[in-house]
Formats: sequence, structure tokens, C-alpha cells
Amino acid sequence: MRLMQYVQMIDDGFVQIGGEFEVVVDEPAFSLIDGHLNYGQVIATKALELTMEKARKTGTATAMIRDCNHVGRLGSYADRAANEGFAVAMAVNGPGIGGVAPFGGMERKMGTNPICMAAPRAGANFVLDMTTSATAEGKLRVSYQKGEQVPPGMMIDGHGNPSTDPADYYNEPHGCILPLGGPLLGHKGYGLSVLIDVFCGMITGSGICRTDRSPGANGVWLYLLDIERFTSRAEYDALTEKYTEHMKSCKRMPGVDEILLPGEIEARRKQQREAEGVAIPDETWRQINELADKLDVSIADIG
Amino acid sequence: MRLMQYVQMIDDGFVQIGGEFEVVVDEPAFSLIDGHLNYGQVIATKALELTMEKARKTGTATAMIRDCNHVGRLGSYADRAANEGFAVAMAVNGPGIGGVAPFGGMERKMGTNPICMAAPRAGANFVLDMTTSATAEGKLRVSYQKGEQVPPGMMIDGHGNPSTDPADYYNEPHGCILPLGGPLLGHKGYGLSVLIDVFCGMITGSGICRTDRSPGANGVWLYLLDIERFTSRAEYDALTEKYTEHMKSCKRMPGVDEILLPGEIEARRKQQREAEGVAIPDETWRQINELADKLDVSIADIG
Repeated sequence: MRLMQYVQMIDDGFVQIGGEFEVVVDEPAFSLIDGHLNYGQVIATKALELTMEKARKTGTATAMIRDCNHVGRLGSYADRAANEGFAVAMAVNGPGIGGVAPFGGMERKMGTNPICMAAPRAGANFVLDMTTSATAEGKLRVSYQKGEQVPPGMMIDGHGNPSTDPADYYNEPHGCILPLGGPLLGHKGYGLSVLIDVFCGMITGSGICRTDRSPGANGVWLYLLDIERFTSRAEYDALTEKYTEHMKSCKRMPGVDEILLPGEIEARRKQQREAEGVAIPDETWRQINELADKLDVSIADIG
Repeated sequence: MRLMQYVQMIDDGFVQIGGEFEVVVDEPAFSLIDGHLNYGQVIATKALELTMEKARKTGTATAMIRDCNHVGRLGSYADRAANEGFAVAMAVNGPGIGGVAPFGGMERKMGTNPICMAAPRAGANFVLDMTTSATAEGKLRVSYQKGEQVPPGMMIDGHGNPSTDPADYYNEPHGCILPLGGPLLGHKGYGLSVLIDVFCGMITGSGICRTDRSPGANGVWLYLLDIERFTSRAEYDALTEKYTEHMKSCKRMPGVDEILLPGEIEARRKQQREAEGVAIPDETWRQINELADKLDVSIADIG
């Protein structure tokens, strides 16, 4: 689904293919990286590798990245680091005005600013990867295209009224996505999102509330902690096992089959798809083929 | 209100007055600290000072603290660090079973596990300090004592039914506090809380799901980042000012007077109370005087 967007980003000048991976500040425990608008996946992967190398030496390490573009799913980086024995915190902000209203507001002022935390666990790592808003724009888009309503509490229309119709988000006057927490607790999601703007936008220098850049010219905060510098892996693993039993043994609400740990659904889905393949919607497959023809690339060769 | 509890904690053996502040691992960019169950405020203040000293040298620094007891309001440490030019992330877990149900569960399995993030801002620092649950136990207690209901979405009774009566939390069978996010998005608050258990309970070695300790024998994660090692303070301040205007200018929902930034309400309340004093409820004042008499301490001397 993103492939067409990523190619479009080159055409629009938002992605600078081959942009330098510049380590602007390079210290034992941290780095400041300028991605120079290359693909986010390329930049973030290199930054992860650099930061793992630092954290193995210094115990903990931080990378701040500016001009990083869309990095994809934060959980994929965090999961990889957890596999190598690290605990992880990571967040991304969009520098633009985004689609989310601040708590009490009815105008788009911030991105969905996701945060991710992860750590090793036998079977499936602990991986929390969440937007600080009540929903992601991509989810509204899917419902909009299907002509479906979304659950209450996710969005408001352009007049500030609660809405379950995603058309109210896309049509003028534009509606907004609400921060995580709803009418009573939305200050929590909003507050997290503001601090992600500070960490990822202001400290990295990627910027905030700017409209002169692609909404994907993101700032990234990545923090790794080498668990074995703090505790033995055996002791840590014993605690994660005990904790897993503690949660799995919980009395469940009616209709709930299992208490899941964060990251568990995603790990099962990954396993299933590695075995059975990934189903691609017909329309997406048509677009991918059309793109391949246009670029004179053979999908068979890539596969 | 806490004073009586803190003295009780000594009587119960949960607080070890004068317990050693032991730096178990002391590295340039991080430390592992054992608080040996002294008062949490004493331990966390020393840990903050040690970590600020490290972060000034290495750019970023981490402290992991075990056996820390109740540290009070996370925002007070974070605010102090922000005043000295640091960005901050901090979290605390209770090692016990707490009062919060996991997402989909109806049994107490985790603490309200708060997280705090902060950074400097002219006038009032950005300070987000929130529980990862829908409410704090202290708020239920206040409503319970007043005989009032709480808003919907905060708690369930001991049979797993939604409840707004705090008595359902305290009476048998015990109800639970719900994670932040409610029925649709509670996996987010729950997920954050699990990762806080991992960072603060498992990596520090403070423990998780144990019942052999005071519920306040907390684990703490503290992370500081010296902003001027990443960007100039002038550039950072210009961005925070621009961002403040960006938010304050937002169209507001009916009945909302002002879009607030995280930490702004608390800063105003502090200023007001420094000018006008802190009102103490009669009953609390009576208990404080009773305690003073019992301990043969003069309140006039302390004041």
C-alpha cells in the first residue's frame, strides 16, 4: 500500500535517494544524525545499528535523527534490538501540522506521534507500538474507502462535534483525530504527543509546526539499554517468565479468550504470514503491477 | 495526607531509615542503584543529582533504581532537571499486584505505573506526569470518602462489570482500575504499563508480581538528556516559543478557555500556592497534629 506513496515521494522531491547518512555529533553514548531525507527505513536501520554498537560499549545509547522521512513500523526496529538483548524506547514526530487536535482544541495541530517500547521475552518479545492519538490516519482511510463508520471517541468533525463518519475527516471543513484518552483523559495522549514533539522535533532539529516539508520529514528518538549490563540474562528471563504466567492466569472478562502481552498478536501474525504468505488486496496488487510496468521493473525478478 | 502513611511505613518495617544509597554499578553513562528501602524521596533525589552529573559529562545518562519506596510526584524531579537544561523520561512500577487489571482481565495484576516526560520551556516547563491507568487509586479514595461516584470508564466491580461506585473497588470482591484507553484502546495503557514493569521492575531487579514487600518498594527508570549537546539553547527556545504559539492559537471546543501545555496547570497552581499558602483539610491537619504529639515533635519548630 505504501509502495506507491514512496515512489510518489521521490517524484515530489520529498525523498532524496542516496542522501548522506551524516553523523553530525558522534559521542560514546549518543549521536545526532541528519538523514538528509533519504528513505526513512534506510536511515533508521543504519541509526539502529550504530546505536546498538554504542550501547554494547557504554551500556545505554541514544540516537536523535532529523530529516528521516517515514520509517515504517517502529516495532520492527525495536523487535530487532530486543532480539539482540536490548530494552528499547523509540518515538517519531511529524514536523507538520498533522491531523490531530490538541486536548480541548478542534483544529489539526500535531501528528499521530507514535511511541514504542520493547524488551526481550521468550517466544515473543514485549513490543508496545502505539500512536498517542485515538486512531491512526490509515485506519480512518480504510474505513472511508469501505464506506464504514469508525467507533465513537476517535474523531471530531470540522465543527468540533463528535463523529463516527470518516468522511468528516477528509471533507471540508476538515475534522480532526482526537488524542488518546477521549473527552476525560485526552490530556494524557496529548501530553505524550507534545513531549514526543519536543524530543523528536525540537531536540533533533527536525522541526515542528512547519509546512515547508513533506509531512514525513520526521524526527526520531531512539534509546537502547543493554540489559545484561544491569542484570543477568538468566535473572531477567526468569522474571519475564514469572510475569507472563502472572498475566496469563488473570481472570478474564466475558468473551476474552486470553490475556495477551504487548507484541504477542503481531508475533503470531508474523509467524502465520511467514508460513502462509501475505494476502494483498486485488486493487493494491493492480497498483503495484501498474507501478512496476511504469518503472519497467519485473516483479518476478524482485520476488 | 501522605505524612501519616510515611510514618506508618517505618512502623511496618517497609521503610529502613538511613538505608544505604548503594551504587551497585557505576558507569559513565548509567548507574544501577539499590535504595535499600530508605525513603523514596531521599533515594530519588540523590539518584537525580548523580544522573545530572553524569549526563553533563556524557550527554545522556540513565539510572535504574531498585527498592526505592514511594518517590512522590515524578513531575517534581523532572521539573527540577528541566530547570537545569535536561530533557527527561522517568517511570516507576510497583512490584506488587497493585490495583489495575490487564486489558481484557478482571483481576488486579499491576500498579498504576506512572510515566513522566519533561523538558524546558520559558514560563512553565513541559511536564507530562501521568498514570498508565484510567485513574489513580488516590482519586478513587477521595471520591469514596466523600460518598461520590467517579466518571464512567475508570473501573470495574469485582464481577467485571463497569462501575462508577468507588465502593466497588474497596469492598469484597475487589474491583479493579482499568488501564488508560477504555474498552477500545485499553491495550495502549496496558501495554505502556507492562513495559514500565519491564524497565523498572525487571531490569532494575526491584521485582514484579511479588507480595512479600511493601507495595511501595518501587523500581525506577530515570533518563536524562543534556539538550545543549544536541542543539543550541537559543534554537531550542525559539522552537518551544513557536510551538507554544502554534498550540495557543488553536480553535477551541465550546467551553474551553485555553489550550494548555502539559505542566502548565501545575506550574500555575504552584505559583498561586507559593503566594497564598496551601490549604490543608481540617481532618488532615488534625491527624498531623496528633502525629506530632505522638512523636513529641513541635509543628511550630518545623514550620
